[in-house]
Amino acid sequence: MTVDRFARVRQQMQAIGTDVLLLSVGPDLPWLTGYEAMPLERLTMLVVPVDGDATLVVPRLEAPRVVEHPDRFALRPWEESEDPVAIVAELVGCPASNARLAVGDKTWARFLVDLQAALPTATWRKGSDVTGPLRAVKDPAEVESLRRAAAAADRVAAQLQGGDLALVGRTEAEVSAEIGRRLLDEGHQRVNFAIVATGANAASPHHEPGATVIEAGHVLLCDFGGTMLDADGVGWCSDITRCVSVGGEPPTEVAEAYAVLHRAQQASVASATVGTACEAVDAAARQPIAAAGYGDRFIHRTGHGIGVEEHEDPYVVAGNATPLEPGHAFSVEPGIYTPGAWGLRLEDIVVAAAEGPDPLNRADHALVVVDG
Amino acid sequence: MTVDRFARVRQQMQAIGTDVLLLSVGPDLPWLTGYEAMPLERLTMLVVPVDGDATLVVPRLEAPRVVEHPDRFALRPWEESEDPVAIVAELVGCPASNARLAVGDKTWARFLVDLQAALPTATWRKGSDVTGPLRAVKDPAEVESLRRAAAAADRVAAQLQGGDLALVGRTEAEVSAEIGRRLLDEGHQRVNFAIVATGANAASPHHEPGATVIEAGHVLLCDFGGTMLDADGVGWCSDITRCVSVGGEPPTEVAEAYAVLHRAQQASVASATVGTACEAVDAAARQPIAAAGYGDRFIHRTGHGIGVEEHEDPYVVAGNATPLEPGHAFSVEPGIYTPGAWGLRLEDIVVAAAEGPDPLNRADHALVVVDG
Repeated sequence: MTVDRFARVRQQMQAIGTDVLLLSVGPDLPWLTGYEAMPLERLTMLVVPVDGDATLVVPRLEAPRVVEHPDRFALRPWEESEDPVAIVAELVGCPASNARLAVGDKTWARFLVDLQAALPTATWRKGSDVTGPLRAVKDPAEVESLRRAAAAADRVAAQLQGGDLALVGRTEAEVSAEIGRRLLDEGHQRVNFAIVATGANAASPHHEPGATVIEAGHVLLCDFGGTMLDADGVGWCSDITRCVSVGGEPPTEVAEAYAVLHRAQQASVASATVGTACEAVDAAARQPIAAAGYGDRFIHRTGHGIGVEEHEDPYVVAGNATPLEPGHAFSVEPGIYTPGAWGLRLEDIVVAAAEGPDPLNRADHALVVVDG
Repeated sequence: MTVDRFARVRQQMQAIGTDVLLLSVGPDLPWLTGYEAMPLERLTMLVVPVDGDATLVVPRLEAPRVVEHPDRFALRPWEESEDPVAIVAELVGCPASNARLAVGDKTWARFLVDLQAALPTATWRKGSDVTGPLRAVKDPAEVESLRRAAAAADRVAAQLQGGDLALVGRTEAEVSAEIGRRLLDEGHQRVNFAIVATGANAASPHHEPGATVIEAGHVLLCDFGGTMLDADGVGWCSDITRCVSVGGEPPTEVAEAYAVLHRAQQASVASATVGTACEAVDAAARQPIAAAGYGDRFIHRTGHGIGVEEHEDPYVVAGNATPLEPGHAFSVEPGIYTPGAWGLRLEDIVVAAAEGPDPLNRADHALVVVDG
């Protein structure tokens, strides 16, 4: 599969006028090669000329971890006394080169600053200009990988909704750790996050689970996801949010807001047909929430793309006129937040398809009451 | 304490001719402010002018997590529909500005590329040109924070050497997870790594602990560390390597190599006096290993600085003529690796001090035999 991805990368480089793509830490490299660079001060960088052979510049110490694919890239291990930036610069061309370069989005600035000094006449753009459009459109096998990850996350959500997790009297941090263990038990290779926010803490959308003890009578927001490997060792992400009402029915105010949120989320999912602009999918979630008077309490975009990265193109946000294509995969996750009181969010991963929106998450969308 | 760090940062900016320092993800920001940026596509960036007030540009969603210090920096939360790069560019000055900027080393390249487009006439250097020399020299309180973290790692090493961890019949990955749990039990706030490599796997210095089952008669290499918080919430790193011989005395060949390694490590620690060049400390480890005929099997530098980051200045490597200063903290970790057979490494954290080298790790330096 990665041979095909190399070909698509070179086509895109040709299309946008890029001579060399440079990939370091971040998801582009494993997506393309199956190899993930360690986040080290020792530079790892894949050098992909638009015409010519690719080379993986890698610290000698890391070289044993690389699964070699001589048909895709050569290995250039560097010794402790060598300068890896000079090696990359030489692979790009002579220092006087006016090469048009694209550098992976998460490459550390220190390496970009050094490369710019070594290649003073080169021009630079973001690696995602090359890889973003390719990664955003999932082929059928990639959609199935995302579906497997979503199904695993759904099973954990069902355990939460079914009362399998003890909640009352435990801290958010403890429940977060248990959700993480269950994600691994259900087949994820790693846990990316497990937000657990009880009561007023849920009014902060990215609340860090802490020492707050979960009490009956509160609504609990759980937003979690991980990475599941495919047969080639490439990881695909899950991401789901469900709220539960712990130890009894929620207060009327919360139940009413949840009903609005639920309708808004479903309307947004239903709107996500091929050809619809991302901003229209955002508006489809926002409009019913605003109409019910909660407009100023929906304080974030509706969603983000997902794939080998938790957050990637396309973003479901006002101002993004990109029309959905078949294979675009993204979250639809509106929320309503009342500072000091409560917070609600409902999230599924959805794939745009010719037959209509394909929601990957199937866990109960209701505000389920759990004994806790 | 961070007020003092702001003053030292501005002094250093003045000294090297930097107008504005820009910090995003990575350890510089928590070192300076106590706040750690989330690794998100939503930009967080602290803007520190050499003369003038600092501003933390932060996504609205993350703003609740910031502990405000109005005496140190103002908050500038940005909304989902705003462009944070434009906000930073405006804080730096008009687009025509010839500002001399330093950008945090681990800032994502995508943000640097966008900032360079927004500030086309600015010049750029690495943030570590400002923060590196300051962070490398630890004050007495910082040394004590490192000593606490080292003592916690020592306790886990002593448990390993004392036979408290079951080894034989378990996988490397299981033992790695247990070492991680014990680091947390001993007071670390997070685990950074726990390399566990048995037999021939240890010949790869950065071996990833996997499904290999630990057997009696093999030497096991364990290299682990984590981060421990100080009273201000700033994290300080530990890092230690010990090898144990599982289920009996090691083969003569391994015992002989270990004796050489042990002598070399002690000689290198002893050489690390104030004023000695880092490369001389590297040479002090390398010389006895080479003299014993293992020179080509010591395939990495002798050590790295340590502090809020696992690896930072100063690096103990050939070619680094930096003389040690009081407060420099670094690892001394020579190794001998025989591909296909075995690998050995011995590591302590050491602080250069006026009174002589101050080794923070005290766990037994011998190749201890454990029943396993």
